[in-house]
Amino acid sequence: MKPTHLLSLLGLASLLATQPAAAQVSQVAGLANNAARLAASAKDAAITRIDPTFWWTGMKNPKLQLLVYGPGIGSSQVSLNYAGVTLDGTQKLESPNYLVVNLTVSPAAKPGKLALAFSGQKKVTYQYELRARNTQDKSRVQGITPADFIYMLMPDRFANGDPKNDVVKGTRVNHIARDSMYARHGGDLKGIENHFDYLKSLGVTAIWPTPVVENDMPKASYHGYAVTDYYNVDPRFGSNEGYVQFVQKAHQQGLKVIHDVVLNHMGSYNYLQLDPPTKEWVHQWPTFTRSNYNNSPLNDPYASQYDTKLYADGWFDTTMPDLNQSNPMVANYLIQNFIWWVEYTGLDGYRIDTYPYSDAKFLLQWGKALQDEYPQLAMFGEATVGTVAQEAFFARNIFQPVDGFKANLPSLLDFPMNSAISDALNKDKDQVDLGRLYNTLQADWMYQDPTRNVVFLDNHDQSRFYSVVGEDFNKLKMGLAWMMTTRGVPNIYYGTEVLMKNFSAPDGLVREDFPGGWAGDKKNYFTAAGRTGQAGEAFNYMSKLGLYRKAHPVLQTGKLMQFIPQDNVYTYFRYDEQGNTVMVLMNGNKEAQKVDGTRFAERTKGFTSGVEITSGAAVADLGSFTIPGRTAWVVELRK
Amino acid sequence: MKPTHLLSLLGLASLLATQPAAAQVSQVAGLANNAARLAASAKDAAITRIDPTFWWTGMKNPKLQLLVYGPGIGSSQVSLNYAGVTLDGTQKLESPNYLVVNLTVSPAAKPGKLALAFSGQKKVTYQYELRARNTQDKSRVQGITPADFIYMLMPDRFANGDPKNDVVKGTRVNHIARDSMYARHGGDLKGIENHFDYLKSLGVTAIWPTPVVENDMPKASYHGYAVTDYYNVDPRFGSNEGYVQFVQKAHQQGLKVIHDVVLNHMGSYNYLQLDPPTKEWVHQWPTFTRSNYNNSPLNDPYASQYDTKLYADGWFDTTMPDLNQSNPMVANYLIQNFIWWVEYTGLDGYRIDTYPYSDAKFLLQWGKALQDEYPQLAMFGEATVGTVAQEAFFARNIFQPVDGFKANLPSLLDFPMNSAISDALNKDKDQVDLGRLYNTLQADWMYQDPTRNVVFLDNHDQSRFYSVVGEDFNKLKMGLAWMMTTRGVPNIYYGTEVLMKNFSAPDGLVREDFPGGWAGDKKNYFTAAGRTGQAGEAFNYMSKLGLYRKAHPVLQTGKLMQFIPQDNVYTYFRYDEQGNTVMVLMNGNKEAQKVDGTRFAERTKGFTSGVEITSGAAVADLGSFTIPGRTAWVVELRK
Repeated sequence: MKPTHLLSLLGLASLLATQPAAAQVSQVAGLANNAARLAASAKDAAITRIDPTFWWTGMKNPKLQLLVYGPGIGSSQVSLNYAGVTLDGTQKLESPNYLVVNLTVSPAAKPGKLALAFSGQKKVTYQYELRARNTQDKSRVQGITPADFIYMLMPDRFANGDPKNDVVKGTRVNHIARDSMYARHGGDLKGIENHFDYLKSLGVTAIWPTPVVENDMPKASYHGYAVTDYYNVDPRFGSNEGYVQFVQKAHQQGLKVIHDVVLNHMGSYNYLQLDPPTKEWVHQWPTFTRSNYNNSPLNDPYASQYDTKLYADGWFDTTMPDLNQSNPMVANYLIQNFIWWVEYTGLDGYRIDTYPYSDAKFLLQWGKALQDEYPQLAMFGEATVGTVAQEAFFARNIFQPVDGFKANLPSLLDFPMNSAISDALNKDKDQVDLGRLYNTLQADWMYQDPTRNVVFLDNHDQSRFYSVVGEDFNKLKMGLAWMMTTRGVPNIYYGTEVLMKNFSAPDGLVREDFPGGWAGDKKNYFTAAGRTGQAGEAFNYMSKLGLYRKAHPVLQTGKLMQFIPQDNVYTYFRYDEQGNTVMVLMNGNKEAQKVDGTRFAERTKGFTSGVEITSGAAVADLGSFTIPGRTAWVVELRK
Repeated sequence: MKPTHLLSLLGLASLLATQPAAAQVSQVAGLANNAARLAASAKDAAITRIDPTFWWTGMKNPKLQLLVYGPGIGSSQVSLNYAGVTLDGTQKLESPNYLVVNLTVSPAAKPGKLALAFSGQKKVTYQYELRARNTQDKSRVQGITPADFIYMLMPDRFANGDPKNDVVKGTRVNHIARDSMYARHGGDLKGIENHFDYLKSLGVTAIWPTPVVENDMPKASYHGYAVTDYYNVDPRFGSNEGYVQFVQKAHQQGLKVIHDVVLNHMGSYNYLQLDPPTKEWVHQWPTFTRSNYNNSPLNDPYASQYDTKLYADGWFDTTMPDLNQSNPMVANYLIQNFIWWVEYTGLDGYRIDTYPYSDAKFLLQWGKALQDEYPQLAMFGEATVGTVAQEAFFARNIFQPVDGFKANLPSLLDFPMNSAISDALNKDKDQVDLGRLYNTLQADWMYQDPTRNVVFLDNHDQSRFYSVVGEDFNKLKMGLAWMMTTRGVPNIYYGTEVLMKNFSAPDGLVREDFPGGWAGDKKNYFTAAGRTGQAGEAFNYMSKLGLYRKAHPVLQTGKLMQFIPQDNVYTYFRYDEQGNTVMVLMNGNKEAQKVDGTRFAERTKGFTSGVEITSGAAVADLGSFTIPGRTAWVVELRK
């Protein structure tokens, strides 16, 4: 997710201004009105909710911290009597409506209903569920590897599979409006499910929807990054159980599922913000204070406290209060929530939004807790930075600890590679500069394992790649070929394969509906017949690359060797110990370029010719050949 | 030193072609003609020379390896009888004209003449001198610290103090020609010495001349990077003993001396190339093969052997054979030579040319040997790279070893900072981008000690800074102010302080004579009266900065704090525990900019006002002030 400065720049301040005043100024603690509203909703129930909403026996970490929410619950005494579960203690918070209950669930504990007896103003017993872990389904939590190809999409904008959930009673938005880029459009999990075949025809093996959890905000929260309930799938997308089934169905189809995680902030209509457990659940400022969106101070030896605090504690947006993860309760709440989602759904990986904005110590703690419980779980963070060094700082790297921080995140969205391909092929450049690709990859020595990095051309925050390259079809193909053949996990943004375009100003323009996702759409790009003209050509090119990559491990896990670009031709090889070799060439020149292949001898030795896999064209002589202008070749070498 | 591609591009191939054919094709081993020529010069003497030419008793490392050179000397037996010195053995090389003699000079050995008896075709005894170390002079080998300010100059082009040595009989060039950028102009050590006062009036504390050792090449070796004798000062610059005195006199004046070291290559007329001890003394190629000048393959996880070898073993130029430091004899030759220069002259530091081109293991070995012997010796390398990470890779850093390589060089010429200031202020940019300065400094977390880095605006290979900034006097001042106040050791290139200009195409254009360095020069910029117009203004500005910095440790060793640039104003502070604080502001806007100083409170607290040290202007209110367009302010804060 990127900063939404643009909203205000584009005169949308008025839009934001229409939200309830309480939510807007909710940085000030003690939201009496909202507390009243929530308490009212709870009515007579002594306990409104307990987070996590349920748990499991047999987790590696036996500790469980319950955040109990209910009017006046804070003054209760708690008791329980359940074999294998002990009460470690309770903790009051500033708000009388919360009570923290600390439990130990020993390995001996059996699944069942744990009766938690609260004795306070009135006595109430809450049947807290301890479930059995699903150890049967081996398709759960597969992780993501370089063998995968990720398709990123926005559930609201991809396809509407269930019109019945377009508007859900009780939510704060009572309409859909496909003609507004800020409104909900009705897309959902069922819509994605309906197009598993489409995704598979591209060679896709993993789906990354932007966050599917509840964003019950009054405006513009279709994107999912303003979470209002950490334990609930947004009803416009489906249900919790529907999401569990979605993951299962995807797994059955050979598709993994990546869950989009927001640790840094939440939506201002989250119950934890409307009726805060403690003042310091989110970072407090005297008046609304926006983050500077610049992570440089985190490891700048010369950083000011001013800049550092503003980055980490400033709010992402007026509607997105900044979580204070240095508060151990907040940290634990987030850790448990994301263990819960894995255990509940069997999802395969986490994409972590706005990664470096969170408290650094918390990030280490959160990462370790998840990795301890699920060593195979994929985790890749969003750290929008300018250099490979700064990117590598936030993942497992070869750096000694800096101010005690040594990142433990296994991988990242590779923003430097993303900048490199955009800069190399940018429409504003006369000269394609492929040295940017060579140099950026060269810097991989700083990562512990760069092959885990996720490589992408564009995303929901960026101008669409086809527009970035000036709608130059050849450049688009070069970008796709590079993404599918360089190291790492390729990741396409929905619609890039059918030439969806636009600049991200505002970002709604790059979040348009996928043609054919809605009944009655004039165009249907989900079918071969519907993909007329160059959109079909682009799809076919992407599909060829995707299916070839899927079938050829050499492009997934093969070693890579790159050569210093010469005459603006960039050449690299993927090769494995089974004798498979793929030669990739990118010609940045407008004109055809003759290539002396003899300098590649250490990789072409033993081969006599090659076949370009997207066109079928033969490369008869590996020692000397001519590559057309502005072209990428993916050449399978033959003996 | 930078690649001299340009020479050939500019039609100078013919110039190079006039050198003896033997030297040109000297990559092919067995230079019969040259061997004959050298043997002839040696005439009846059985021993032409021994390197090191002399040595000392009491060195930390007791080992001494002599390279004995003389016609047919290789077949000799050696004996000696000298208290405390033992003969460890001898070693024949491929050439019959060389013999390696390995000695141990124990701590007990006394200074004196060590009689080395050679018995071969004829018997000869060589009186090898073992000198006493100079332990009296405490001004020797001071090292370089951030308290220093380095003045870099080219001895041939700075000032001609001794016209008698302009042309030296027996050298391969028999004329000077001040109107040719490739010829020698007659400048010398005496010329530098004559202007110690000038340097001191700028606040300079250290002099870095380009190499002063013999470059007896037939053409264009005025620059000093084509060494023909590792043990001899070029007679056009002075003598060995003259250089020793030069260092002493400089020290007496409070000026340190940096010696420019070339480890990667030598001049093709070096005796070691004309009559090679072994074929593999330099890297051999079937035909002349130029380096690719790209150090990326050294730590690229995906590098080809082709690119790696071409970088490290390719020749720097036709006239600069590439030394093979993986040969232990070559390595030892270079190690001893540079211990010799320190011990002989008491010089303060080494600037190491083309640092990463040399064999990586050798660099570690060379660095360690020097540091073991002279812990305080300054050493800073030239590694021309694009990113801070790649720069830091070549110096002491926070990286785990990469392929077993962990650099031990204490510091570097800071090329990323150099690119940053040039890019930020470049003439071709509408908008000055001070974020480049902030971002580059931010990346200092990768260095073990970035304060040792040498910060410069331009050098002998680069376009002169005044031209880079489009001869914009304000931008020049911004550059100078930044260089003198950011962290590190500032380093000015001769003439930048008096607005010398030109683009480095070819590089001779940025190596013009300093006005006033030659008797009869129309302009004399060495005197206040001679510095008419803006040259004088520039000098005065530089002088104010230099003298202020020299007198104020806060700008030398004070801590640095920088703030994220706002409204294109970049602000940083230097401060120390004694309560001194200097605030530096750079306004990148053409227009004046109002600055809200309250965000700097953590540094301005306790101060009420400030004085801009170059103009004397007062900053009355630190909370709010206006800085003029395209201006750098260096503000001493006052209580």
